[in-house]
Amino acid sequence: MGLADLPLRDDLRGQTPYGAPQLDVAVRLNTNENPFPPGPEVVRSIAARVSDVTTGLNRYPDRDAVALRQALAAYAGDRTGVAVTAANIWPANGSNEVLQQVLQAFGGPGRRAVGFEPSYAMHRLICRGTSTEYVSEASPPDFLLTPEMVAAAVTRQAADLVFICTPNNPTGSAVSLEVVEAAYRATSGVVIVDEAYAEFSDEPSACSLLADRERLIVVRTLSKALELAGARIGYVVANPSVVDALQLVRLPYHLSSVTQAVGLAALEHADELLRWVVELKRQRDRIASTLSQLGYSVIPSQANFVFFGGIGDQEGLWSRLVESSVLVRDVGVAGHLRVTAGTAEETEAFLAAITTLTKETVA
Amino acid sequence: MGLADLPLRDDLRGQTPYGAPQLDVAVRLNTNENPFPPGPEVVRSIAARVSDVTTGLNRYPDRDAVALRQALAAYAGDRTGVAVTAANIWPANGSNEVLQQVLQAFGGPGRRAVGFEPSYAMHRLICRGTSTEYVSEASPPDFLLTPEMVAAAVTRQAADLVFICTPNNPTGSAVSLEVVEAAYRATSGVVIVDEAYAEFSDEPSACSLLADRERLIVVRTLSKALELAGARIGYVVANPSVVDALQLVRLPYHLSSVTQAVGLAALEHADELLRWVVELKRQRDRIASTLSQLGYSVIPSQANFVFFGGIGDQEGLWSRLVESSVLVRDVGVAGHLRVTAGTAEETEAFLAAITTLTKETVA
Repeated sequence: MGLADLPLRDDLRGQTPYGAPQLDVAVRLNTNENPFPPGPEVVRSIAARVSDVTTGLNRYPDRDAVALRQALAAYAGDRTGVAVTAANIWPANGSNEVLQQVLQAFGGPGRRAVGFEPSYAMHRLICRGTSTEYVSEASPPDFLLTPEMVAAAVTRQAADLVFICTPNNPTGSAVSLEVVEAAYRATSGVVIVDEAYAEFSDEPSACSLLADRERLIVVRTLSKALELAGARIGYVVANPSVVDALQLVRLPYHLSSVTQAVGLAALEHADELLRWVVELKRQRDRIASTLSQLGYSVIPSQANFVFFGGIGDQEGLWSRLVESSVLVRDVGVAGHLRVTAGTAEETEAFLAAITTLTKETVA
Repeated sequence: MGLADLPLRDDLRGQTPYGAPQLDVAVRLNTNENPFPPGPEVVRSIAARVSDVTTGLNRYPDRDAVALRQALAAYAGDRTGVAVTAANIWPANGSNEVLQQVLQAFGGPGRRAVGFEPSYAMHRLICRGTSTEYVSEASPPDFLLTPEMVAAAVTRQAADLVFICTPNNPTGSAVSLEVVEAAYRATSGVVIVDEAYAEFSDEPSACSLLADRERLIVVRTLSKALELAGARIGYVVANPSVVDALQLVRLPYHLSSVTQAVGLAALEHADELLRWVVELKRQRDRIASTLSQLGYSVIPSQANFVFFGGIGDQEGLWSRLVESSVLVRDVGVAGHLRVTAGTAEETEAFLAAITTLTKETVA
């Protein structure tokens, strides 16, 4: 007996689990992680807060995560310049769970979501997991969305949900607020703006559009700029009625007391956790300029990674980089790879390896 | 603008979020929590392990949670007497998320689940959240399921999924393995046995039936006997192909490094955490015998709570108990309430209050 013999849902047959290949190589620049671990002060704060809640771990957590939502509201307000309160915030175990809850509330059978690809692959997969139809619209060759093309696609697909990812993963391109506004006008459904990498961007947050837009949902995370991928804390910023809707579908007690404690401790040290953002942008820009000099076509990035094209055989280059102990990401776009900005040393290792490999190929 | 103006899924309109009323009263016997907090040694272990992983929290967690699954396999094997390995185990953020993943893999549109009510209300709600049809079959007046009635109901409903909860919440009744076997024979779909309270029961675990039954899925948790409701760790015990199926629908990195660390630390101290099980069974039996003496009809319980009937007005009694600073649970079954076994003092407070209220009513 095996998987094929089980009464699996039909649309899962033949599928394989999603996830980047995890190889044990020295330089891992494949999942857009922040290479800088939380500092000793943050570690101490987290340990202390977790220790505190552990003495009450026999009890269920605060189902509404009020304290964490207040802290996230203060943080999001600081970062976006848009005043929000706990009523505007809904956190879950990573932005993936946030997105799943959004689709459980506003998607499901009979509803159609549209995304502009290449983009974050989980948008499609979370649609599948929630029985929401997902249709993909191709981005233009320069990967830059315009209000006109987005509005036309949303209208043509009669989309009930629209995914906009900005800065977009894997391209790094920022999407303008005009595009978000155009998508919003073109649908009577919800517009989901995935801002996982927003802290690395110079563009304004879509939070600035929330005032008059009840159906707009901004999704952010502590995983990237805030160095907490392992803590799994993502959150929605939206109008309070959206938060009410998410509470209809959230699993009760979805967010552990420990996770809430980790988030609270980390947000007390937000400035310290963010201290590496400038450095990572510097490494990103260094990667972009070196790759350009090597002759690759580099997509301008507002995130902590760089997407580059003009590769004859991206699977081959990916493998040769692994042989050089550097792991990057092949997201399945022909001729392109994505590389995360690492520490100066990691970035140097990548640039040295690709410079050598490129010259070998050309020579 | 409010919730009613949003493009919410039709089946969510007019709904309210699930969850027990949480009131700030002295004695909380409403959510079947374990009243005993983890001891100092466990708290120290958890803090140490969390501190360790915090220094790497910028990286994603182990997506497959291998170490935690090994520890859960050892624990489940010890408790059930059935040898299992990490390949038989799949953990998530509470048994609610485990159940959601099971329904995402084996339920969904076009599939029908059957449950025997009263039972754990989340079974129905997680079906709704995953667009799985849920039909309820009424338990007999003594709340004891028989193989014949379960097999007949599963066949009549052409069920693709069957929920069996043992010991059953809210009744506390253990369901015999013969019932599970009968359900399994009656469907070509999956049989989900929810054993959240198994450590309080003298009955054998359905894990003992796994050997020949690929479609059998046992769900357990660290929330109850292991005093970790706040940590949100539930898990499946099943054949490896079921675990493969769940990996198709799990959100990548669903279980944080911190949660994995908490689970590992706690399982090192499983014997210490379980030390109160005998005491809680004693308090449960004391509640049952006192309620019987007061004239209530008490359902024999194998869990850490007691379900009792023969109440003229259960909403009134619930309110009067709250006025006496005791919070119990009205699960919506006419004439019945559910009370969790607490510490000796908490149990005494409940018994004193209900004794007084019962005598007042009779007098």
